[in-house]
Amino acid sequence: MIKIGQIGAGRMGTVHAANAAASRRLDLAVIADRSEAAAERLAGEVDARAGTIEEILEDGDIRGVIVASSTDSHLDNSLACLRAGKTVFCEKPLSLSPDRLAEALPELASLPPLFVAFNRRFDTHIRALKDKLDAGSIGRLETLHLINHDPAAPSLDFVPASGGLFKDFTIHDFDMAQWLTSGAIVEVMAWASCLVDPRIAELGDVDTAKILVRTDAGEIVMISNSRRSGYGYDQRIEAFGSKGSLRVENVARDEALQMTEAGPAGAPIHFSFRERYADAYRAEMDHFADIIEGKAAPSTGGADALRALRLAEAAKQSLTSGEPTRLTEQADA
Amino acid sequence: MIKIGQIGAGRMGTVHAANAAASRRLDLAVIADRSEAAAERLAGEVDARAGTIEEILEDGDIRGVIVASSTDSHLDNSLACLRAGKTVFCEKPLSLSPDRLAEALPELASLPPLFVAFNRRFDTHIRALKDKLDAGSIGRLETLHLINHDPAAPSLDFVPASGGLFKDFTIHDFDMAQWLTSGAIVEVMAWASCLVDPRIAELGDVDTAKILVRTDAGEIVMISNSRRSGYGYDQRIEAFGSKGSLRVENVARDEALQMTEAGPAGAPIHFSFRERYADAYRAEMDHFADIIEGKAAPSTGGADALRALRLAEAAKQSLTSGEPTRLTEQADA
Amino acid sequence: MIKIGQIGAGRMGTVHAANAAASRRLDLAVIADRSEAAAERLAGEVDARAGTIEEILEDGDIRGVIVASSTDSHLDNSLACLRAGKTVFCEKPLSLSPDRLAEALPELASLPPLFVAFNRRFDTHIRALKDKLDAGSIGRLETLHLINHDPAAPSLDFVPASGGLFKDFTIHDFDMAQWLTSGAIVEVMAWASCLVDPRIAELGDVDTAKILVRTDAGEIVMISNSRRSGYGYDQRIEAFGSKGSLRVENVARDEALQMTEAGPAGAPIHFSFRERYADAYRAEMDHFADIIEGKAAPSTGGADALRALRLAEAAKQSLTSGEPTRLTEQADA
Amino acid sequence: MIKIGQIGAGRMGTVHAANAAASRRLDLAVIADRSEAAAERLAGEVDARAGTIEEILEDGDIRGVIVASSTDSHLDNSLACLRAGKTVFCEKPLSLSPDRLAEALPELASLPPLFVAFNRRFDTHIRALKDKLDAGSIGRLETLHLINHDPAAPSLDFVPASGGLFKDFTIHDFDMAQWLTSGAIVEVMAWASCLVDPRIAELGDVDTAKILVRTDAGEIVMISNSRRSGYGYDQRIEAFGSKGSLRVENVARDEALQMTEAGPAGAPIHFSFRERYADAYRAEMDHFADIIEGKAAPSTGGADALRALRLAEAAKQSLTSGEPTRLTEQADA
Repeated sequence: MIKIGQIGAGRMGTVHAANAAASRRLDLAVIADRSEAAAERLAGEVDARAGTIEEILEDGDIRGVIVASSTDSHLDNSLACLRAGKTVFCEKPLSLSPDRLAEALPELASLPPLFVAFNRRFDTHIRALKDKLDAGSIGRLETLHLINHDPAAPSLDFVPASGGLFKDFTIHDFDMAQWLTSGAIVEVMAWASCLVDPRIAELGDVDTAKILVRTDAGEIVMISNSRRSGYGYDQRIEAFGSKGSLRVENVARDEALQMTEAGPAGAPIHFSFRERYADAYRAEMDHFADIIEGKAAPSTGGADALRALRLAEAAKQSLTSGEPTRLTEQADA
Repeated sequence: MIKIGQIGAGRMGTVHAANAAASRRLDLAVIADRSEAAAERLAGEVDARAGTIEEILEDGDIRGVIVASSTDSHLDNSLACLRAGKTVFCEKPLSLSPDRLAEALPELASLPPLFVAFNRRFDTHIRALKDKLDAGSIGRLETLHLINHDPAAPSLDFVPASGGLFKDFTIHDFDMAQWLTSGAIVEVMAWASCLVDPRIAELGDVDTAKILVRTDAGEIVMISNSRRSGYGYDQRIEAFGSKGSLRVENVARDEALQMTEAGPAGAPIHFSFRERYADAYRAEMDHFADIIEGKAAPSTGGADALRALRLAEAAKQSLTSGEPTRLTEQADA
Repeated sequence: MIKIGQIGAGRMGTVHAANAAASRRLDLAVIADRSEAAAERLAGEVDARAGTIEEILEDGDIRGVIVASSTDSHLDNSLACLRAGKTVFCEKPLSLSPDRLAEALPELASLPPLFVAFNRRFDTHIRALKDKLDAGSIGRLETLHLINHDPAAPSLDFVPASGGLFKDFTIHDFDMAQWLTSGAIVEVMAWASCLVDPRIAELGDVDTAKILVRTDAGEIVMISNSRRSGYGYDQRIEAFGSKGSLRVENVARDEALQMTEAGPAGAPIHFSFRERYADAYRAEMDHFADIIEGKAAPSTGGADALRALRLAEAAKQSLTSGEPTRLTEQADA
Repeated sequence: MIKIGQIGAGRMGTVHAANAAASRRLDLAVIADRSEAAAERLAGEVDARAGTIEEILEDGDIRGVIVASSTDSHLDNSLACLRAGKTVFCEKPLSLSPDRLAEALPELASLPPLFVAFNRRFDTHIRALKDKLDAGSIGRLETLHLINHDPAAPSLDFVPASGGLFKDFTIHDFDMAQWLTSGAIVEVMAWASCLVDPRIAELGDVDTAKILVRTDAGEIVMISNSRRSGYGYDQRIEAFGSKGSLRVENVARDEALQMTEAGPAGAPIHFSFRERYADAYRAEMDHFADIIEGKAAPSTGGADALRALRLAEAAKQSLTSGEPTRLTEQADA
């Protein structure tokens, strides 16, 4: 078993620690958190012990660290671990500042592997779509629709530090857009409104958006975002190619279907990312074990994170200007 | 246009007259019915005139007659028209008496064509299944499931003269069983209950049944019947073969799907045979025009009607005896 | 029966004449076409007679006229008939020139009813969505996705006179956008490419587009267009509201589903507008009879046609400028 | 953590050991098998140690034992463990001999809890159906269809010791039939053929069956079995009630759907019980932990196993006699 540590015992930390604990390849030994109580609680749940970041850094047997601390400390904690020779699994976003990230890239190149986890790349359904697309089953990709709607509006406390809709939420779609298209993204146009909750607008954010993205291969991507679907976590992808289309539909909680006078009624779709991507989070952990053992390179790292972040910034700029944003000078990405 | 007449202005007569009137190949000129008022009403609706059976028989320009009178007069009216040289489209059942039907078969062989209409053979969806089956898409047929559930229990007035569940309702399934299998049916086992309405039992009938049918090729067919589904007219077929399966699902009234917290909700399936098989009834009329013009032989005639009727009798016998009924001596069918 | 005439015996004329002939309310008596041979052919098919436009205009018994002539004569022919006191059913587009149309609107207000046929408003499935939306089943509408992909690229001969993708094809989506949203459309942004056939670009047109439309109620509509889907006539609508979503999926040719080792395989979706909207075209004809009899006002008329056309022009302008087009001064619409 | 042991390191033993090892509640310490090598291999995989049955029985810290040895030793091994004070999780069938089982029942009543694992009762989808059924969502249950088709014929070596189709395979359906209906099963009729492989017939078994089961509440159950579907592990249930129906459809490997000219093509359904019921096997293990901790009584035990077995015997008898078998004297069950 590979001994690992974890920094962060919050929402995502709990998800990752449980998966690490259930893995037969990883031995999650130490969990650190700004809040000692939180670290203790989580450590108790997964048969690990609570400790400090320093202890993790100094323990020579610890080969990998999961960084799931608060967003603003992702990059610093990751760098600290990498410099200490640990392989790192960092929850997205690696950083909310493209400048800081761009600055860090050269050093990252010389450190142990850094895996920035974009969960959707590990989803069975999306991978099946990607595989078929790569196999040419629908010819050449022409356009792409990404639907990403949260079930219910986030707590207002969360909004200010989130980085805004594009950096916090659309970032997944930007990564998907880049991953699934063949060209490099050169233009972004964002239209957004605040329709779900006017207080989100007061906090300077939006909650509903349609974003267009264009690649230098002529592909056009449409991203649909909403902070509140009213019916669950809507996660769909549809790819249109020269010979057909490929899509991933939502996944229902169960397959029981009821027929009555009122018509057919199925089970709701999964409500949250935890349920919808449960398998993907487990697969991420397996990928992390592969990376530590040298069996795989990170599927996504700092450069991918920077690229997605730049797209989020471009979207924000488009929203402000009312015009498309062209991406022209990104030598670093 | 081919001049035709119609005997019967009731429920099925109304369906057929409307389709004949809308056909560009048929000119429905005269409608006769025991009730003059009914004939007048329907004739008014479809731009025909009310008349008598005699007028129809004697009109040398009338080449075909639709027989949609009461069930007990189907055979007599059909024979009268055929003897008068008309091609006949007779609504099922041709007769409720297998003996009378068997007796009539030899004469039928020497008369103009008689088309006994089994609507399902003309349904787009079922034909698609049949075509794929015949094309070998699932290998050799092994077993077959037929689901035939009415939306709501029939009026109790209807029950006594209906001939009972098997002759009135299952008759369609027996025809499907014979049509879709490759062997000849040699055994029938019926289990039935009266679960929908106890008054149906008082009238000597059943309302819920599972029937097994076996062919001499080893194929087994399961027929499920109910007089009341609670959710519409359930019409499904599933064929299991050596390499896969083929099925026809129910058809919804429309394709609008609603997603809310409660889950997905679709439109109800078609409620009645009129809606579900509207296209099939139109196609029957076209087949009738083909038969009159000599372009096609009837897809089903007296022998098919007798075969289905014998199976209904066998099912009834099985229900009485509690044992399977073997069909051994049906030289006539 | 209501006596009517028809101008135009081409592709759409054939569709409409067949439906008029099958209607029990309409008597299609005369068909005129620039090509006498075409008029003769179609008249023969539907039991009408070939004639001239003048004969139609002068026949006092003719109460309505179907205008299905070439696009550039739609408005003139409609006006001629209306001035002659006939009610008019005009195939879309009424005109390709918003200026000419704006100029005609005042006169149209004083003439008999003019029905500009937008077929989708008569589709069972789309109407079911509209009814549920209006009934508040998903709360307040927020955003809308319209997918409208043709099965295969049009003949290149057709492109130059078509008015271009937006006026010829997206026009349906603009009408849907206006019909389904509650606000007035105030902004249009179009991104388009020529991915299907480079010769379409040489003719100055595009074949692939994503268009964003915004209403003054904050609703955002995304329209997806392609001239070639590779899998049939893709016609989908999805509405996202404050409490859920509503969608209309594609309609399959039949419901036969095959299961083999390779997985489930269903029937293709309808290939062309003729099949997909067959029922809608029939319903249009019924609506036309209602209008002539004074039972209904046209569901869409000149003003709706102008509005959709202005949106098409705005989309074209956005494509040229690379920026959103704001719609501000449309007093006439 | 609850210390447990396991007897049996074969196919099912491997499934159960992996789930026990991944459980945070159970500590699988010792694995015994007739083949020491098999025990060593599996123990290595799940971080346990290989040992003997005696060691398991004598280890006072071991509170529970998973019995997944060969079928003919299930009952003896279970009894040995129970007599040693262990709670037992026994893979089905507990025994192939109803007489031996009936004989053991009185003693079982006085021993620690025995959980005979019927996996389907733990499946999310089937539980959802059961919950809705119990909640009265379709009124009173009337009839039930169970489809249970294996993907591919078993190895011929397996057939002789399997107990035959009914005891080995239909046993699951008999348990479902009993679980989902409200009445007691009083009659069984089995029709079967050997259509998949004639060598199965030579071994005295059948591979294709339709079985009817009736309860004293008038409910009728239809069970469809095949040893080879050609398209995966077909596991469907449909319940028909007085107000509607409930069904569980098959579960696809993934939700990626491809649309091409040929029509829609989805992913195959799960191929084997291991994949289809992976979650159910995990849930069984959790139930086992609950039983050991006294938080739950076994959902199914010896009496349920005997009841299912008697139904399998009744089906076999019906097959031999060609008549329905009535179940009248089962005081013990």
